[in-house]
Amino acid sequence: MNNVFVIGVGLIGGSLCLDLKKIFPEIKIHGIDISEDSLDLAIKLNLIDHKSGFEALNIADLVLIATPVDIANNIIIDVLDIINEKTLVIDFGSTKNNICDKVTDHRNRRNYLASHPIAGTEFSGPESAFSGLFNDKTIILCDTEKTDQKLLKTAEDIFNSINMNIRYMDSLSHDKHIAYVSHLSHISSFMLGKTVMDKEKNENNIFDMAGSGFESTVRLAKSSPEMWAPIFKLNKDNIIESLDEYILNLKKFKILIQNDDSVQLKSEMKKTNYIINILKGIN
Amino acid sequence: MNNVFVIGVGLIGGSLCLDLKKIFPEIKIHGIDISEDSLDLAIKLNLIDHKSGFEALNIADLVLIATPVDIANNIIIDVLDIINEKTLVIDFGSTKNNICDKVTDHRNRRNYLASHPIAGTEFSGPESAFSGLFNDKTIILCDTEKTDQKLLKTAEDIFNSINMNIRYMDSLSHDKHIAYVSHLSHISSFMLGKTVMDKEKNENNIFDMAGSGFESTVRLAKSSPEMWAPIFKLNKDNIIESLDEYILNLKKFKILIQNDDSVQLKSEMKKTNYIINILKGIN
Repeated sequence: MNNVFVIGVGLIGGSLCLDLKKIFPEIKIHGIDISEDSLDLAIKLNLIDHKSGFEALNIADLVLIATPVDIANNIIIDVLDIINEKTLVIDFGSTKNNICDKVTDHRNRRNYLASHPIAGTEFSGPESAFSGLFNDKTIILCDTEKTDQKLLKTAEDIFNSINMNIRYMDSLSHDKHIAYVSHLSHISSFMLGKTVMDKEKNENNIFDMAGSGFESTVRLAKSSPEMWAPIFKLNKDNIIESLDEYILNLKKFKILIQNDDSVQLKSEMKKTNYIINILKGIN
Repeated sequence: MNNVFVIGVGLIGGSLCLDLKKIFPEIKIHGIDISEDSLDLAIKLNLIDHKSGFEALNIADLVLIATPVDIANNIIIDVLDIINEKTLVIDFGSTKNNICDKVTDHRNRRNYLASHPIAGTEFSGPESAFSGLFNDKTIILCDTEKTDQKLLKTAEDIFNSINMNIRYMDSLSHDKHIAYVSHLSHISSFMLGKTVMDKEKNENNIFDMAGSGFESTVRLAKSSPEMWAPIFKLNKDNIIESLDEYILNLKKFKILIQNDDSVQLKSEMKKTNYIINILKGIN
């Protein structure tokens, strides 16, 4: 492992670079980003060694695509066109089926591995990167039978060495499940934030009356629009299905409140309390 | 301050007792609860000194009502009937207008103070009580002009001495605002938990794919049904208004996703990102 290229030097890309430098002290990390400022900052923060461009990708041993998903989709063919036959290309986007579809007939399909690390914070940009972001987190690898098995092994070794828990899933299932356990949470949080802010024009009331419960529920409303708008677009059908079910459940709950149906309200909440057992499995 | 009675020895009541014992090492704390087990546990955990009953309330200097809001509403008249003319009675429920209405013509109205501490966790029962729960948290005091000013001063002194930040608000406004910044969050979280669990019958998919974002958004779905069903009932109109607006916002957002309107999606999220500034004021 000599030359690593990271496309997108934000939270995910930057944090990966920090971890990689620990495992491979000798590697050279080449950064590519549409933002010159981000690249400058990434050099200053020692995330990357220097700026580079697509034309240099033919010397890459490893290419990490850590951009918003729409950009990853737009550049994946170009990347696969330029790399050499031994290059491993991994993307880290939150939707997987569309990018897997896109590369399906590419002559270098076997150089590509589709991944989704279940790690992140609500912050973005190089300044939010930190070593250890991926420690003990899950990474989902999709459609791995379509990746060269030696390159897949290289990727698995890297993820294992930064202490990630690898899971395997086909890209269609990934997108279906992730709509529920991740994408829907973001929408629910964004719209909660919007609803409260629209109502509480006088901020002081929020300041004073909002507690840690509100803060926890609305945390994801801090997330990056540039990252999330493309996810909503690329996983549209699954997200709309999950949103429809969410809205339906809210309406049903509203009717129970309207009808003063305390028995049924308690029963619904009691059933949902089972989430305690599920959350114990997270982290 | 000699005799303190706490009705409801759960998270709020128990934590208050621990704090009071620090300020007034000599006080005797009498516990009242419908659950004998909770009382036994509260004694074992040193939250209260012994069990008591309503008939003893006439010796109380201070009565803390820390039950679910429906029970508080049911017992407040009995409590005010029994106390002596110097007793201070404080309740800590999450809805305030109905209980204030209930006592409005009582001869001992001036012995009563309506409060709502913006503090708590998703856990309940005596075992979840801890000293420091209220440290640097807000407590909202409602309709304080109707409380005897000397007794109000006593209450303020207590809250100040456990380092709470006191705010004043009429009970109608309290219920209106709290529907948005607290009650709605709980419903949004409960229904998110339900939607995901209904879909993901095979739990392992949730375990593996859910990250800290999901955990944060769904945290309040662990909350106690016994506590929350009465809140939803007693603040019904405000909650339904907030739920209607929330559902409307979700539907509008869904339409933007359906229409691939990335510009508007980004704009909505960007506006909502302003929550970052508001959250800085919390904690």
